[in-house]
Amino acid sequence: MTQQTAANDATRRRIAESFARQGLMQHFGARLGYIGHGEVHIHLPISPNVTQQHGYFHGGATGAIADSAGGYAALTMLDHGSEVLTVEYKINLIAPAAGEELKAIGTVVKAGRILTVCRLDVYAQSGNEQKHIATGQQTLIRADAG
Amino acid sequence: MTQQTAANDATRRRIAESFARQGLMQHFGARLGYIGHGEVHIHLPISPNVTQQHGYFHGGATGAIADSAGGYAALTMLDHGSEVLTVEYKINLIAPAAGEELKAIGTVVKAGRILTVCRLDVYAQSGNEQKHIATGQQTLIRADAG
Amino acid sequence: MTQQTAANDATRRRIAESFARQGLMQHFGARLGYIGHGEVHIHLPISPNVTQQHGYFHGGATGAIADSAGGYAALTMLDHGSEVLTVEYKINLIAPAAGEELKAIGTVVKAGRILTVCRLDVYAQSGNEQKHIATGQQTLIRADAG
Amino acid sequence: MTQQTAANDATRRRIAESFARQGLMQHFGARLGYIGHGEVHIHLPISPNVTQQHGYFHGGATGAIADSAGGYAALTMLDHGSEVLTVEYKINLIAPAAGEELKAIGTVVKAGRILTVCRLDVYAQSGNEQKHIATGQQTLIRADAG
Repeated sequence: MTQQTAANDATRRRIAESFARQGLMQHFGARLGYIGHGEVHIHLPISPNVTQQHGYFHGGATGAIADSAGGYAALTMLDHGSEVLTVEYKINLIAPAAGEELKAIGTVVKAGRILTVCRLDVYAQSGNEQKHIATGQQTLIRADAG
Repeated sequence: MTQQTAANDATRRRIAESFARQGLMQHFGARLGYIGHGEVHIHLPISPNVTQQHGYFHGGATGAIADSAGGYAALTMLDHGSEVLTVEYKINLIAPAAGEELKAIGTVVKAGRILTVCRLDVYAQSGNEQKHIATGQQTLIRADAG
Repeated sequence: MTQQTAANDATRRRIAESFARQGLMQHFGARLGYIGHGEVHIHLPISPNVTQQHGYFHGGATGAIADSAGGYAALTMLDHGSEVLTVEYKINLIAPAAGEELKAIGTVVKAGRILTVCRLDVYAQSGNEQKHIATGQQTLIRADAG
Repeated sequence: MTQQTAANDATRRRIAESFARQGLMQHFGARLGYIGHGEVHIHLPISPNVTQQHGYFHGGATGAIADSAGGYAALTMLDHGSEVLTVEYKINLIAPAAGEELKAIGTVVKAGRILTVCRLDVYAQSGNEQKHIATGQQTLIRADAG
């Protein structure tokens, strides 16, 4: 489904503006990475704002960046009068989220007229090593932008 | 499954100590509420740290407190040498998360020897009104405390 | 959400007719039980058609009757020109599905204009005993009947 | 994770024997396809035993073969004294399941000591066309064979 082509400038700008207005992402210290047609990356450096009781990334932080990456991936495939809302997501935490930074990748699996389904993957990076720490699936619904 | 009895003091203390060590929950401004045998509540007041692009609670914040509420609910039913890790969770966002405060309720549906399954519900409170804004399901695994 | 009132005759008839046309449910030997406003039960007796390799109910049979019970529960809350399609479901198999009969209960948690969210529960009955063997969550979308 | 190598003969035999004992799969008319290390395919031809009210494949049949494909994929990566049980699965039905045959592919994403996570995909085939009709995710637990 995903064509590995970069999104156009208007789409990139639109996503960057939306991201900048998300208080939670700013507070987390998260930043946007690659923005392609049907694929968006979000990076999250480790900080005291995003940890659980053992100092690893909190599962809630992992879920939050995965959810956002999928939402923006869906948005890259819609016209500019549309927004997306998360209907539901499911995520498996498959390895300890330890490392310097997380990278969440949202990828559109199916873009329908009303609903979009994304795959969500999160990797933890430590030095040169990258580990797959979470994988999930998400359903989104198109809404008219206000 | 859930017996609506308050957890004992040692369990309450153990959960409060773990919660206080979660950087993410502290920075969110979240606080523990009711701690019962098989049921735990977490409250999250609105603040710029937890919002999405329209000023509502971010779906990632909703998911994070739901995940934590379920994890602590599972912990209330285990002996003190055990910890729990989230295997996976799935959450439906069923109404806009608008209001002054969210309340996440984690409830144990099935406590097994290795795995625990919880139901997750999140409510938004505005004045005297309370609205059901998310419902989910979570699988956790028991681990030996380090 | 669910009002524990029986559905009206037209709704009951409509669901019975749809159920009778489901080849899979007929070949499973499944039958409709209680049909209430926002709640539908489906019963499935044990038979060689529905077992896995150890002679218990197959997880796929458990999932199938749970999915159908949720779909019909959603249908009880829609006008007669509408149909529902399953968007997705998630089910935890929490105990061995052993016994003489399964009972799946679909319950509407949230009925929206476009989407409906249901809770799914399956019980195994052996003599007078009833055991909770699966719990799940389902998203459905309203469609115009053809 | 998945190494695209065929499973060895003992593993293939073991899976074929288990599959033959699944009454539901026999009744459905399903058959095993490719058995690789960490990947198993199941084929399901259309028949009155597997349809819903409009004559398409029933979502429960789609879910059942996806669940089984994932279970056997997990089994290919375990020693012969082990079995697997489905903990939970989640599946999105992304297009109408119309066609002559379904093919479910279960692929291991993460094989842990206790838990295995699989990706599930189902395709409908009509003549030379193949359509992606469902995608899901599954958690399984290792158990000692009886």
